[in-house]
Amino acid sequence: MIIVMKTKAKEEQVEGVIKKIQELGYRPHVSRGVERVIIGAVGDERHRTRLQALDSMPGVDSVIPILKPYKLASRDFKAENTLVPIDDGPVVGGKQFVVMAGPCSVESMDQLRETARAVKEAGASVLRGGAFKPRTSPYSFQGLEKEGLEMLAEVRKETGLPVVTEIMTIGDLDLVCQYADILQIGARNVQNYPLLRKVGTTRKPVLLKRGMMVTVEELLMAAEYILMGGNQNVILCERGIRTFETATRNTLDISAIPVIKEKSHLPVLADPSHSCGYWQYVHALSLAALAAGADGLLVEVHSRPQEALCDGGQSLKPEKFHRLMDALRNLAPAVGRDLSPQVRGSNARAIA
Amino acid sequence: MIIVMKTKAKEEQVEGVIKKIQELGYRPHVSRGVERVIIGAVGDERHRTRLQALDSMPGVDSVIPILKPYKLASRDFKAENTLVPIDDGPVVGGKQFVVMAGPCSVESMDQLRETARAVKEAGASVLRGGAFKPRTSPYSFQGLEKEGLEMLAEVRKETGLPVVTEIMTIGDLDLVCQYADILQIGARNVQNYPLLRKVGTTRKPVLLKRGMMVTVEELLMAAEYILMGGNQNVILCERGIRTFETATRNTLDISAIPVIKEKSHLPVLADPSHSCGYWQYVHALSLAALAAGADGLLVEVHSRPQEALCDGGQSLKPEKFHRLMDALRNLAPAVGRDLSPQVRGSNARAIA
Amino acid sequence: MIIVMKTKAKEEQVEGVIKKIQELGYRPHVSRGVERVIIGAVGDERHRTRLQALDSMPGVDSVIPILKPYKLASRDFKAENTLVPIDDGPVVGGKQFVVMAGPCSVESMDQLRETARAVKEAGASVLRGGAFKPRTSPYSFQGLEKEGLEMLAEVRKETGLPVVTEIMTIGDLDLVCQYADILQIGARNVQNYPLLRKVGTTRKPVLLKRGMMVTVEELLMAAEYILMGGNQNVILCERGIRTFETATRNTLDISAIPVIKEKSHLPVLADPSHSCGYWQYVHALSLAALAAGADGLLVEVHSRPQEALCDGGQSLKPEKFHRLMDALRNLAPAVGRDLSPQVRGSNARAIA
Amino acid sequence: MIIVMKTKAKEEQVEGVIKKIQELGYRPHVSRGVERVIIGAVGDERHRTRLQALDSMPGVDSVIPILKPYKLASRDFKAENTLVPIDDGPVVGGKQFVVMAGPCSVESMDQLRETARAVKEAGASVLRGGAFKPRTSPYSFQGLEKEGLEMLAEVRKETGLPVVTEIMTIGDLDLVCQYADILQIGARNVQNYPLLRKVGTTRKPVLLKRGMMVTVEELLMAAEYILMGGNQNVILCERGIRTFETATRNTLDISAIPVIKEKSHLPVLADPSHSCGYWQYVHALSLAALAAGADGLLVEVHSRPQEALCDGGQSLKPEKFHRLMDALRNLAPAVGRDLSPQVRGSNARAIA
Repeated sequence: MIIVMKTKAKEEQVEGVIKKIQELGYRPHVSRGVERVIIGAVGDERHRTRLQALDSMPGVDSVIPILKPYKLASRDFKAENTLVPIDDGPVVGGKQFVVMAGPCSVESMDQLRETARAVKEAGASVLRGGAFKPRTSPYSFQGLEKEGLEMLAEVRKETGLPVVTEIMTIGDLDLVCQYADILQIGARNVQNYPLLRKVGTTRKPVLLKRGMMVTVEELLMAAEYILMGGNQNVILCERGIRTFETATRNTLDISAIPVIKEKSHLPVLADPSHSCGYWQYVHALSLAALAAGADGLLVEVHSRPQEALCDGGQSLKPEKFHRLMDALRNLAPAVGRDLSPQVRGSNARAIA
Repeated sequence: MIIVMKTKAKEEQVEGVIKKIQELGYRPHVSRGVERVIIGAVGDERHRTRLQALDSMPGVDSVIPILKPYKLASRDFKAENTLVPIDDGPVVGGKQFVVMAGPCSVESMDQLRETARAVKEAGASVLRGGAFKPRTSPYSFQGLEKEGLEMLAEVRKETGLPVVTEIMTIGDLDLVCQYADILQIGARNVQNYPLLRKVGTTRKPVLLKRGMMVTVEELLMAAEYILMGGNQNVILCERGIRTFETATRNTLDISAIPVIKEKSHLPVLADPSHSCGYWQYVHALSLAALAAGADGLLVEVHSRPQEALCDGGQSLKPEKFHRLMDALRNLAPAVGRDLSPQVRGSNARAIA
Repeated sequence: MIIVMKTKAKEEQVEGVIKKIQELGYRPHVSRGVERVIIGAVGDERHRTRLQALDSMPGVDSVIPILKPYKLASRDFKAENTLVPIDDGPVVGGKQFVVMAGPCSVESMDQLRETARAVKEAGASVLRGGAFKPRTSPYSFQGLEKEGLEMLAEVRKETGLPVVTEIMTIGDLDLVCQYADILQIGARNVQNYPLLRKVGTTRKPVLLKRGMMVTVEELLMAAEYILMGGNQNVILCERGIRTFETATRNTLDISAIPVIKEKSHLPVLADPSHSCGYWQYVHALSLAALAAGADGLLVEVHSRPQEALCDGGQSLKPEKFHRLMDALRNLAPAVGRDLSPQVRGSNARAIA
Repeated sequence: MIIVMKTKAKEEQVEGVIKKIQELGYRPHVSRGVERVIIGAVGDERHRTRLQALDSMPGVDSVIPILKPYKLASRDFKAENTLVPIDDGPVVGGKQFVVMAGPCSVESMDQLRETARAVKEAGASVLRGGAFKPRTSPYSFQGLEKEGLEMLAEVRKETGLPVVTEIMTIGDLDLVCQYADILQIGARNVQNYPLLRKVGTTRKPVLLKRGMMVTVEELLMAAEYILMGGNQNVILCERGIRTFETATRNTLDISAIPVIKEKSHLPVLADPSHSCGYWQYVHALSLAALAAGADGLLVEVHSRPQEALCDGGQSLKPEKFHRLMDALRNLAPAVGRDLSPQVRGSNARAIA
């Protein structure tokens, strides 16, 4: 932590800060510049809340943190990439580019089965589908809840595709864990700390979506809450941030991919569907995400988007998804990736 | 809902949309312009999710909603201002400008008591203080939890000030309700819909803080979740939105005050402390909020900010808070408001 | 400037940075922390471009500037408030709260005269009106140019109100200077450096509007370009920044008022009309700006807004402006300000 | 244009709007819904400024435009891709992925020559380099101006690489046109309408950079100003927008690539260097831009970045640029593009 004193700070104010730094258990390191005094506080900055409060001391201009505020999520802490294996499914974070696809929400057995078969055939290796839906409007469809989870389980059995589905509240943890292979924490819950702590106590893979108002640093801090509980199976997901641009629903922060790869060892997916909000742009953004170094995608596919109860306008039809998978398969080798192949053993299970 | 067709949409595509609108139970109203066809879908737009999905039909350029997506929160639904009475405290939303003040987090009995007495003396009519703290970093102080609630209760008894404190998760509802006069939903939980539904089942006043990336419309939708449960005691709070400006921690969206007053009947406070993040600007922003028509303030005051475990840099010292209250008291009549007087009966209770 | 080395930076990399700092004429000051080395570069940071480039040296994690990048605009440089006197008009930056009002664009002699008389009567002390209009669309009305300037001059003579009008390009400087009492630099030109330098060579008061994506620091840097030329008569203007919120056209950054007052000695106005884009909110925002410490307002008034060629929806009608001026006059004493009185001598000139 | 009346609008207010629409030369089309009346105004919306002003009429809730506000730049107007041929250089907008590379600013003959040779060798087909530099700080290096242009001309002769360089003000047009093959309009001048009109009168290719605060729609409107003058040789460039994220300097809006490709026929480049501000992320973003459908790149390369007078931290060293070009060449075929080959005839010219 660096404490920058005001231009006209008095010597006694400088002394006051030095004394306070020592009281808080840090070692002060004073540097007298042309215009002002700068004081370093040497020690573990992670517990720095109290140092931050120095900015209300007389004579202090600002307090600048130096260390990253996260530890377990950082590449300094763990240099090699984390691999997250999915039960009966792919490993996320390795050479394989993992595509998770399916409808925004589970609406009916027919819709889910039809879509699941289509995405499997095209080469997706995880099925996505929401049973609990966080909707801005209380008048919108809120998901089939338990019934939706049961449909996911049934289709999982039929197709062999492992399932990623959202959990919205602590009380549903046991229920959702029974059905889900990957627990999804939605963008609106990325700073729901009690929920993060709770999923940190399981060993289920967690797909943590970046909130639309959350910086990469804050996303890594959210991941830290899960990692602290001992659950290392964290997969991050960039899904668009909120900006002034209205041509797309959100703005896919493609730079977040290389930034996360540099700062953290955790795998990161991109969600092109929620990022842009229009199926027309999903193809281009998916290719961009692969090229930028993402470890996979979360894509919305719906067999009949114009009848969707949720986000129809951003869902790909099966034939467009097929075309996307072909394009990804074509592009992957040029950036040293494999596209996720058919899930091994799925047929066996589907048959059995 | 208005469906705008593409410039070159074919007649059969127009027919397809018309048919779909009818199937969904709306009445189509076709308007043929110079360049394109526009189709109105007449009917209750609130259940419009499925209309929105029309934008994935062939020939459709865009789908534009016309109605506001909220109802119970809107001024169209209820023209007169909602008044929210606080137990043993002021009424929020009336002539009185209600100042809620206190430390960001409850840290110790001494800190809380000292601060509470100071803010009461200065004329605050509600005590704020967090026992459960949502912190970006898992390494920061997370609140005293139950112990903090008990301190609040104790100081409430001593000073007669009703208490507003944050609830972070459904499981804590009964506990927090025992101690709090007002349930605070923090910015990070503004779209935690299960929590909103749950507090909607109580009749406790709820202070709903706007999220830093939530539009006014989305804030009103969040309020709608609470109102739907039958709890009419909703107080909104503007606390700064996230923008590119870094001179302040967030950007107080002062326009949100008149916008909310026009669109909704619910009372609205401003939180100048979290908005700017620096105590230096709290005075000016507080006066601005009063002048803009806010119904009150949520202000951080700490008897010794440089020792605060949380947000010390944005907390006013008691003497600065005193000066602020004097300035507000001076300004209030010019905009037709009274500053909240001492809470009646508080002494009696404190003595008993 | 502080150079933060990477956690695993090698000793030779540290030495390399130290050497480079010395080569660039700065004094290095090394601080060895628990996890990493931090190096201060002591010397005048204003010419720091080259120090910034150190972040491409091996072993360097980041380079953090300490000093403010502006000098002449800063309060450190000049402690007392700058007063900008307007010819035949008020002084901006003193006790008087100066209201500049008029139509967005000059459209006709009748429209301008009618509006000017109305705003004068209500107590405005400067007339605003654009002759050169920067319009997003090339198909929109672009201003009457020279003819508009002549109308402004004529109405100036009739009413005695000094005139503020926009200059868009260097080539128009002489022309605009002939007619304008205050040169307005619009939001889109706030970083048009050749234009800023050019108006810096005059001694005309300059009203510099903050760009909608410009930080307060960048605004002060833009002012620095003008001040460097020797023109001290700079008036800043907060006019709303671009955010994700769509309920208003832009978001009035009310905090910018106290931030600018703390960091700079220059006067600052607010433009509530462009900030929100709807006349309904102009009243509340104007009062807020006065309460927050602004030195005045720039308000759009149009005698017949529904016939305006530009920004009709955000213009106040004369009677609403009258009501606003009354409210401001009522509020001003509570924050130690006078509302600008009738311009002295204007009648004399108008009669003569 | 669609005029939405308020829920409780009176019949006479509806009549008033209808009459006004007719007066303005449009045909009204009334639709009476469950809750409110909606009126379409049929006619050419491009000249719609005056319709917009209807939102200040009594009873009107809002006015919603339907048509795109640009015409010449739209794909509706011209379906096939525009190709922009560069003198002695590549064609932008065709199959070839065109890489323009070089230093941020021209600093010396040695620096420019060394860098130009390196980028040419790696396969860049246009040399970038600024002689006039718009710098936030007046204390930063402002460019070598005419001397810089002469260096560019000299190096152009030596290497055969055509040159793209920035023009900042109308007065420099003739000078810059003498030396530049492509006129660059910087992000800060994207809404400098007099400058846009002026370059529209030439037939030089114009590289128009998106401002950091400008929507895609506004960028296309800025292009419209140039196209209206008869200059069809407009190349757009996405260079990052301003958001709340601070891990990168700006946020590359990768979605803008497919959005522009859908809405317009103009070619579009990406500038990964300014987008992110750190050389570390330039490689990933460049690949992403190619995959997303961009027509080329504008990349900063500096032979000795740590000595750069401008933006050293975001410049690639020649060897890293070489590696990038190899990666692009490897990726291009997978998305149906060729990487720009060596410029034909350049050797001849260099030798002659």
